[in-house]
Amino acid sequence: MRFKILGADRETRARCGEMETPHGKVKTPLFMPVATQATVKTLTPKQLREIGTEAIICNAYHLALRPGEEVVKGMGGLHHFMGWSRTIVTDSGGFQIFSRNGLSRVSDEGVEFCSPFTGERVFLSPERVMEIQSSLGSDIAMPLDHCVTHPCPREEARQAMLRTHRWTRRCVEAGLKPAPAQALFGIVQGGVYKDLRLESAWGLVELGLEGYAVGGLSVGEGRELMLEVLEYTAEALPWERPRYLMGVGTPEDILDAVALGVDMFDCVLPTRNGRNGTVFTRKGRLKILNSRHKEDPRPLEEGCQCYTCSNFSRAYLRHLFLSGEILAMTLLSLHNLHFFQHLMRDVQEAILTGNFGQFRKTFPTSQEEEREGRKEMALWTS
Amino acid sequence: MRFKILGADRETRARCGEMETPHGKVKTPLFMPVATQATVKTLTPKQLREIGTEAIICNAYHLALRPGEEVVKGMGGLHHFMGWSRTIVTDSGGFQIFSRNGLSRVSDEGVEFCSPFTGERVFLSPERVMEIQSSLGSDIAMPLDHCVTHPCPREEARQAMLRTHRWTRRCVEAGLKPAPAQALFGIVQGGVYKDLRLESAWGLVELGLEGYAVGGLSVGEGRELMLEVLEYTAEALPWERPRYLMGVGTPEDILDAVALGVDMFDCVLPTRNGRNGTVFTRKGRLKILNSRHKEDPRPLEEGCQCYTCSNFSRAYLRHLFLSGEILAMTLLSLHNLHFFQHLMRDVQEAILTGNFGQFRKTFPTSQEEEREGRKEMALWTS
Repeated sequence: MRFKILGADRETRARCGEMETPHGKVKTPLFMPVATQATVKTLTPKQLREIGTEAIICNAYHLALRPGEEVVKGMGGLHHFMGWSRTIVTDSGGFQIFSRNGLSRVSDEGVEFCSPFTGERVFLSPERVMEIQSSLGSDIAMPLDHCVTHPCPREEARQAMLRTHRWTRRCVEAGLKPAPAQALFGIVQGGVYKDLRLESAWGLVELGLEGYAVGGLSVGEGRELMLEVLEYTAEALPWERPRYLMGVGTPEDILDAVALGVDMFDCVLPTRNGRNGTVFTRKGRLKILNSRHKEDPRPLEEGCQCYTCSNFSRAYLRHLFLSGEILAMTLLSLHNLHFFQHLMRDVQEAILTGNFGQFRKTFPTSQEEEREGRKEMALWTS
Repeated sequence: MRFKILGADRETRARCGEMETPHGKVKTPLFMPVATQATVKTLTPKQLREIGTEAIICNAYHLALRPGEEVVKGMGGLHHFMGWSRTIVTDSGGFQIFSRNGLSRVSDEGVEFCSPFTGERVFLSPERVMEIQSSLGSDIAMPLDHCVTHPCPREEARQAMLRTHRWTRRCVEAGLKPAPAQALFGIVQGGVYKDLRLESAWGLVELGLEGYAVGGLSVGEGRELMLEVLEYTAEALPWERPRYLMGVGTPEDILDAVALGVDMFDCVLPTRNGRNGTVFTRKGRLKILNSRHKEDPRPLEEGCQCYTCSNFSRAYLRHLFLSGEILAMTLLSLHNLHFFQHLMRDVQEAILTGNFGQFRKTFPTSQEEEREGRKEMALWTS
């Protein structure tokens, strides 16, 4: 997989690049909407394209359990199955298995867990996870990783990191990287321990992978610690390959991570928030159910070019949400994803024109304040 | 409101016409998707336009309770509020009040009932219902009607019919028809009693309304009785004004009613069925959850030009539905509504080219069989 750096910021490690996958060119820094079950919740591929989405991320583990990767393969692969003709990344499912399945049993062979759909015991080996992703035919595949939650004792984090490394090495050495055109990334683990993170990064880099993900962050360690770990981890990864911070995050998290040299992001936040009525704007988040929107003729965000903001008032969207109408979820998800895609385009441009520092500085900190929920009233009554 | 008959069938009373409302020309026979709460469930106005939707029907009673017609008016009226720039019909809500609200109390003044949203007692008079629809600014308004369920004793049906008539007359005589550009229809009641239906029709025709609806059908009387009542009722209505059969129906119901001279229809069937996984095709209905679709690469309906059929397999749609993904509801609703719009266009063309009889005869009767649920297995395993 080709990755070309088009420009870099002079003050930070931020860079703007271009990845070329079998399904097109993708500009970085990149935000990928989450399509765990082969759909970005509530939205059609057409709607995703219209807001400028270039890549999405699906989950190999979920799709192997349902509908089964052989079904997807039989339909011509994941792109054809879900009607998405651009880049698809598939996550292995390690995070999902370890974080949501207390009953998983892990050994060097792989991991055994209960299917959340049928309750049956399922066994996944690192080799099997490669096989699944090969059948799905994604553009970028992730190896099975052993994730730990936070807080995690050092020795446990070390064992999980070493196991992740052994698993990845096994796949690479057995030539088990997915289909020829697919790229295989490595996933750096190691909890919040600097020496473990560096050992993990160096070990994976030795394997010569096509990109490097940072896993096991944003799992409860808090924002400051996350950025601290990310800083030394990203620095240990090669400049010339894409870096992917998994499962992150808020607009502010993304801006800070971009400044540390991260190129790729994915997060359920814009769609999940859309479904529960929380809207991203550059002036902060807003809750559409708030009664102050009852007769508000303004769009969610003034000046926003998305379909939702071009056609509907806050009053209408609040009415839909209050009435339990599914269209509310669709329209809010659409706006939120547009917000993230628009943010990434602005970030790319800011890096290329040497204005990233300025952009970041002037990006409203109200985001943070609203996230903490402390100044919401003050923000929205002013 | 202008209504021009473009052509009529020679064997039946079917005709193809064109209504001109303040928001555009609408060809009949017409099917209107239901947008009770100011949204056709799960779909954007853009998606509705793309499948050729020319008119929708909203509910004055629902919108008066939530968000309140003054809110809608404040947003520039219903068209602007919901982002729909074509024709809107508003139902009065009589049907909803009487059929779903056992605790309603009716007198000549109007009807008192419990708000399904707040439990509060609400009073609606025929005058108030006009006022609501005037605020909403719909293109066609319906008067408050007293609906009875089936079976209904003759005297009860007669009182309800006479009351509906008195209510409508009161509005017309007080000049309470909605805003000047709006059209006001009458609603024929009278249960399944021929003399009552004729009395109702004649009484309303005397008021010189702009269109005539047939209410109180498809409420449990069965298909044969419905068509029998519809036949003499439609015949008693003036040829030169549009006739509207409220709340109907299946494709077969629509074809039969068109043959009896009906021009307008509305029904929740395509969207409700879409949301519960039932799909209309010209070969009969299919249940997307049926395991026989698990690896079926075909679209819902071969040859269908809708977005869903152009992009997705039955296997994918089944996967979405099984996974509880909202996109399944959207895509199935979209196909089903496209099916209805396409059917109406075919009906219009068949009437204009003198082929309506033939079209009706060759329209698959499997629809009926599947509706009864008896031969489903036979149909879909063959």
